[in-house]
Amino acid sequence: MRRFVIGSARNLIQRSRQNSQFQRPLLSSSYRLLSSSPPADPSSSSSSTMTPPVALNTINPKVIECEYAVRGEIVTLAQKLQEELTTKPEAHPFEEILYCNIGNPHSLGQQPITFFREVLALCDHPAILDKSETQGLFSADSIERAWQILDQIPGRATGAYSHSQGVKGLRDTIAAGIEARDGFSADPNDIFLTDGASPAVHMMMQLLIRSEKDGILCPIPQYPLYSASIALHGGSLVPYYLDEATGWGLEVSELKKQLETARSKGITVRALVVINPGNPTGQVLAEENQKAIVEFCKQEGLVLLADEVYQENVYVPEKKFHSFKKVSRSMGYGEKDISLVSFQSVSKGYYGECGKRGGYMEVTGFGADVREQIYKVASVNLCSNISGQILASLVMSPPKVGDESYESYSAERDGILSSLARRAKTLEDAFNELEGVTCNKAEGAMYLFPRIDLPEKAIKAAEALKKAPDAYYCQRLLTATGIVLVPGSGFGQVPGTWHFRCTILPQEEKIPAVVSRLTDFHKSFLDEFRG
Amino acid sequence: MRRFVIGSARNLIQRSRQNSQFQRPLLSSSYRLLSSSPPADPSSSSSSTMTPPVALNTINPKVIECEYAVRGEIVTLAQKLQEELTTKPEAHPFEEILYCNIGNPHSLGQQPITFFREVLALCDHPAILDKSETQGLFSADSIERAWQILDQIPGRATGAYSHSQGVKGLRDTIAAGIEARDGFSADPNDIFLTDGASPAVHMMMQLLIRSEKDGILCPIPQYPLYSASIALHGGSLVPYYLDEATGWGLEVSELKKQLETARSKGITVRALVVINPGNPTGQVLAEENQKAIVEFCKQEGLVLLADEVYQENVYVPEKKFHSFKKVSRSMGYGEKDISLVSFQSVSKGYYGECGKRGGYMEVTGFGADVREQIYKVASVNLCSNISGQILASLVMSPPKVGDESYESYSAERDGILSSLARRAKTLEDAFNELEGVTCNKAEGAMYLFPRIDLPEKAIKAAEALKKAPDAYYCQRLLTATGIVLVPGSGFGQVPGTWHFRCTILPQEEKIPAVVSRLTDFHKSFLDEFRG
Repeated sequence: MRRFVIGSARNLIQRSRQNSQFQRPLLSSSYRLLSSSPPADPSSSSSSTMTPPVALNTINPKVIECEYAVRGEIVTLAQKLQEELTTKPEAHPFEEILYCNIGNPHSLGQQPITFFREVLALCDHPAILDKSETQGLFSADSIERAWQILDQIPGRATGAYSHSQGVKGLRDTIAAGIEARDGFSADPNDIFLTDGASPAVHMMMQLLIRSEKDGILCPIPQYPLYSASIALHGGSLVPYYLDEATGWGLEVSELKKQLETARSKGITVRALVVINPGNPTGQVLAEENQKAIVEFCKQEGLVLLADEVYQENVYVPEKKFHSFKKVSRSMGYGEKDISLVSFQSVSKGYYGECGKRGGYMEVTGFGADVREQIYKVASVNLCSNISGQILASLVMSPPKVGDESYESYSAERDGILSSLARRAKTLEDAFNELEGVTCNKAEGAMYLFPRIDLPEKAIKAAEALKKAPDAYYCQRLLTATGIVLVPGSGFGQVPGTWHFRCTILPQEEKIPAVVSRLTDFHKSFLDEFRG
Repeated sequence: MRRFVIGSARNLIQRSRQNSQFQRPLLSSSYRLLSSSPPADPSSSSSSTMTPPVALNTINPKVIECEYAVRGEIVTLAQKLQEELTTKPEAHPFEEILYCNIGNPHSLGQQPITFFREVLALCDHPAILDKSETQGLFSADSIERAWQILDQIPGRATGAYSHSQGVKGLRDTIAAGIEARDGFSADPNDIFLTDGASPAVHMMMQLLIRSEKDGILCPIPQYPLYSASIALHGGSLVPYYLDEATGWGLEVSELKKQLETARSKGITVRALVVINPGNPTGQVLAEENQKAIVEFCKQEGLVLLADEVYQENVYVPEKKFHSFKKVSRSMGYGEKDISLVSFQSVSKGYYGECGKRGGYMEVTGFGADVREQIYKVASVNLCSNISGQILASLVMSPPKVGDESYESYSAERDGILSSLARRAKTLEDAFNELEGVTCNKAEGAMYLFPRIDLPEKAIKAAEALKKAPDAYYCQRLLTATGIVLVPGSGFGQVPGTWHFRCTILPQEEKIPAVVSRLTDFHKSFLDEFRG
């Protein structure tokens, strides 16, 4: 059964080949048409109908193959319902759309960390830094930090392109933050600041993927950025399944099995993606497990792509986040032993600053010549946005004991994290109360990924509408309650099982409403389709 | 002679094919090696030397082919010299590096527009908006504008991901700004906000290019983002030459000739890139010329990719910027007649806010199904940074007569633009004074692209060092004077001619020093190599 996804990856490749074969005759005929078109004649041409230069069957088939469920069909429907509610509040049996589809905390009312925003505002408008009114509006340490940051930026010019990897002084701060986190040295020259983590992931895929014969080992379920990026770059997604029965455990035996299956099909597997804490699955890896993964990558010659954007989001006392860099260094593996890229973002954590598009990757264990190529690709886009760069330095170096802002900062941080932990637990319990639903523990990240047994009749009803059964469930839930979830089929799942991803982000006072609406809907849905 | 670049594009394709053939045996042997590797043994493996999973001959050859001269070898050398000056100020015969290589105004001391920065700061830290001290620090209309913008953002959450195309209210403002500029309607749903213009260009190349058989008509000389993006996406650059003799004129007869040459080689040409005002060439197209270009694209079924990021940078009274959208609508061509993408950025203009990474593309004349695909690709990266989005709305809707900031705003704007015009003229005159150098008029943009006749001996000296002669000239200039230029070979030029690009951005008080250093160097360089 687990062959399904590899099968579908192969289908994807074949379909894309068929597409290109299919397009060639089309293209050459259109080419002949174009070549024989008469010379320009403005008077006649404005009335003639243009054959559009771009049609669905003449665009890059990799774009067509790419899918991104987090902003897919369900979200488009949600936006439509929201517009209808604006013009006609009684149009639907709910007052508002509750977006539980995406890790976007501020959109659901989470407030920014004051210190971070103070520093950003001051760096945006440094002209006010030495005005007396500023002392009354901003904390003393935010003013001091803004000065420090401005002094790190050549010419204090926050409006200038920076070094292609980001402002050197900010990378120094980030490297120091990584050292403090891990207890192992970090080199600012290994840091590439990026507009969120997504462009960093694309850069690595662009570097590693030469053709559909190159494969990337990805967890299933996975955050669909990975499948989308692999599709856009024309590679093959090599799936490995997380084991739902052991709390979405990551077994090295499964990695080995899937690696060998892929190799037997002629795929050169180039990298392993690990998302820790997990998205959409919310598990936090144990250190021993991480060691085995590092060993596997080293033995098999794979780049380890470590998505560590949820490093601050751990909700259970028995688990702790360990970076893969720390784990590999603690095993005695250095720069020459393992190729490792760690992704971090300002969009997650307790800060959740998605709109700022800040992030970085730490690139270790690559030769100087390959590093130069990564630098070159970064330089084509000049640099990431400076506010995002500043914020990335702030999240890796927040106020410290003794700073004026420390108490308010840590109260804000702890308030958010403890509330997220409570929300995760409440939702997890609520899901487990539902008939036919089982939900693993939310150890970390911002999501729950419950499994749902759907009645045969519901599956048939979905099939009749040419929808995945979990997509059908989510669509019915949305139109009945305004709650937006992402169907498990958008992340991948063991064939024949159904899931959905639900964020833990609605504000705490709204959680009871989410639970009761979801519970009521679930009951009536099961009643409707009960055999 | 003009076949050179098409020839080199073909070589590029062939080399990349050879590369992949070259890699296959390597890969399969490394694959065999990996498959037969023994099971993990932590004790032995830390001492064994790893075969790195990624080497220069196993990365994506498209990445290797990509070049971006604006941040190439000369800039790397400049950064090295700058570091040496920091530790040892007398290390070189100059006190500072003068970066004339890149359109990065704030890095050379240009100050931001106060109103824009006020609004950005207030949107970053809205908590201060209703504090009394804020009235003393910020203009009344910046406070009002910040409120307006916050009201356009759902939940006033500047820290949330927006709609994948950007905040709807900001797109409304931009569309209104386009309408005011052009006198023709603009649809906010056609706007895609992006992190600067570069990601927008990449998105279009990704959409249009399926293989090396797809070509994009690009000006030569061109801004190397285009050649880099075409290389990264595996397409063919189809060059058309701007005519230096007529002030870098764009002749439709040349477009036709190159289109037909490309088609005769089996290339499907999909789009035409026009940069207006020109980069690196600084010319501003006449409206009649633009009409002929529109007509050409319509007749030949090409997407018109209009790089209009320098739309505010016009320095001569006899020329005016006209957007290609305005020109095509004024010809009676609507949505169904021409596929047109216009790129705009907050990095250029009088604002020059490169570090903010704001920009947009206006996408018109594509079918709904293709538009959906563009939306999908945009959604994989979630959204562009919100500060950049806000700034893009501000540059398209600056303060108006009667607003408190209007006078100071227009004084700042006019001061920058008139100073740029003076600097352009001074540098243009200075270049034309140099022996063997001719420089066209700087009508617009931020660059001059003078042609330089190099002595035969200098060309030989360059060849001995395996350098392009213009690159050799620029390197010698840098080490002698600290002035950083980009050699013409980075942009493309008629073979056998040599150029360099020089920005007009050094602050006005530094221009005399640039001129005298450059003049002295040029004389001694010619003397050294005189026949």
